[in-house]
Amino acid sequence: MNDIYIHEVGPRDGLQMEKQTVPSEQKIAWIQRLAEAGVDIIQVGSFVHPEKVPQMADTDRLFQHFNLPGRKPPNVELSGLVLNEKGLERGLACGVDMFCMGVSASETHSRKNTGMSIDEATDRIISMAKAVLNEGKRVQTSVQSAFGCGFEGPVPPRRVLSIVRRYLESGIRNISLADTAGHAIPDQVTSLFQGIFKLDPSVECACHFHNTYAMGMANCRAAMQLGVKYFESSFAGLGGCPFTRVAAGNVCTEDFVHFLQRKGLRTDIDLTKLIEISKDVAIFFGREMPGLVYKTGPIPWREGTPS
Amino acid sequence: MNDIYIHEVGPRDGLQMEKQTVPSEQKIAWIQRLAEAGVDIIQVGSFVHPEKVPQMADTDRLFQHFNLPGRKPPNVELSGLVLNEKGLERGLACGVDMFCMGVSASETHSRKNTGMSIDEATDRIISMAKAVLNEGKRVQTSVQSAFGCGFEGPVPPRRVLSIVRRYLESGIRNISLADTAGHAIPDQVTSLFQGIFKLDPSVECACHFHNTYAMGMANCRAAMQLGVKYFESSFAGLGGCPFTRVAAGNVCTEDFVHFLQRKGLRTDIDLTKLIEISKDVAIFFGREMPGLVYKTGPIPWREGTPS
Repeated sequence: MNDIYIHEVGPRDGLQMEKQTVPSEQKIAWIQRLAEAGVDIIQVGSFVHPEKVPQMADTDRLFQHFNLPGRKPPNVELSGLVLNEKGLERGLACGVDMFCMGVSASETHSRKNTGMSIDEATDRIISMAKAVLNEGKRVQTSVQSAFGCGFEGPVPPRRVLSIVRRYLESGIRNISLADTAGHAIPDQVTSLFQGIFKLDPSVECACHFHNTYAMGMANCRAAMQLGVKYFESSFAGLGGCPFTRVAAGNVCTEDFVHFLQRKGLRTDIDLTKLIEISKDVAIFFGREMPGLVYKTGPIPWREGTPS
Repeated sequence: MNDIYIHEVGPRDGLQMEKQTVPSEQKIAWIQRLAEAGVDIIQVGSFVHPEKVPQMADTDRLFQHFNLPGRKPPNVELSGLVLNEKGLERGLACGVDMFCMGVSASETHSRKNTGMSIDEATDRIISMAKAVLNEGKRVQTSVQSAFGCGFEGPVPPRRVLSIVRRYLESGIRNISLADTAGHAIPDQVTSLFQGIFKLDPSVECACHFHNTYAMGMANCRAAMQLGVKYFESSFAGLGGCPFTRVAAGNVCTEDFVHFLQRKGLRTDIDLTKLIEISKDVAIFFGREMPGLVYKTGPIPWREGTPS
């Protein structure tokens, strides 16, 4: 349970949900400071059509910025979400370190998002992931709506595991389960990751939870207990699900780091700096954000529990 | 893990934190509806000096109201918090079903709240608890600040367990651990309740968590896994800790019930009714409350996970 990595997805999953498009300079400042705070991977943006998601229109420019000499923060990987071959091409052209891509385990969600069945979408993602690996870049493939779907309701675990099996058979080592609609409960988390580790104990697992129904942190803990190492979270708790009416976003990065540091883990991350960034975010959007620790301040002692 | 009971503490721990004193008629309406929704125990109020906590000044009158013939909702127990002998006398006179009382595991917290050391306070609480049992009433004793203290910081688990041991030796069967400052993390929850069940596997354990640092639900789940049966929560997520600057309150009743029902537990509780009450609470106080499910609405399917 010692190797826990933070994959900060706020600049993508958070900011794409906001009505207001954040200027590139502001995104750069936040990404820079998140990197300085010590998170491991930052998802800079999504390679979607700029007219479809104007909030993500500057994704290529952001990567180009950070790939200029001296601008890339050390010790951090910059990830980008790609949805199709065109996005992959853009990502390869602008210097993405880690490519994230996924298939929905919900037939309805898959068809709505991609116009393809789950099987067709899986074929395409695997072919894209192989292209990334051939370029010597890192790839993470995900199963979206892995714990339930806003359209379909329950999602059978065997359907999730059959997508994961296909990923593994294609040589993909990094696999994320995403709780797109926020439906997950810890029992599901335990059971699905157990299923994955049964397929292959050496797979590098990631998880992506939303706190829509208040279960985000409990789900993270269940994932951590199973050996999941990569946690996708958003600073200030940005983000939210298009299928719900509330702004409860991703698991909040600084709240999760606060929890980790209470356990004596990842004390190298600068929590104070994370909190300052989230205070800025609240000022920028002019509203209270879902994160809690940026409001309370951390517990002054985090060095573990006395006996 | 099947017998889970909801002890709704919002009318006490929630409303005592609000600047605005809620009129008795409004409290009665909320308590009535909470009982109709199917929660098991409702903490009506606290027997403190009315000038010290004006929000709780009507506690005796509320119990008198519900003890008039035909007014007491069936299948629900009404609990009251007592801090001293005077409060106990008042509680016995007005028909409290279940007396709640506690000792802080923090020396500073204990002296600030009661003017007594932990040892002195424990003596007094045990003597009060015995008086309650002699009257044939139910009693629950708690250890407050069991997971950390806003004044002292870390609280040694052995200090918590030594108070619990004294409770058990005095014949008290219902014991609650309260996370007054919201500092708990699941590892502590697991370890402390393991310690208690090691002292006596048949003790009836309760827990009381605040979501101050976003760990409320994860802590509840850890407690549930250990065999804790009574969960103290607040409707709409009311409540908060005087030692923090934020309004993150108790674990939210309807969010917790939503979680239980996703597991197929306590499907007898009327979640829709709980949600309606919390919507009313938000309107009454004119602000968004910390609870999430009253805003999102429940997931439409809650009957468990398909295989």
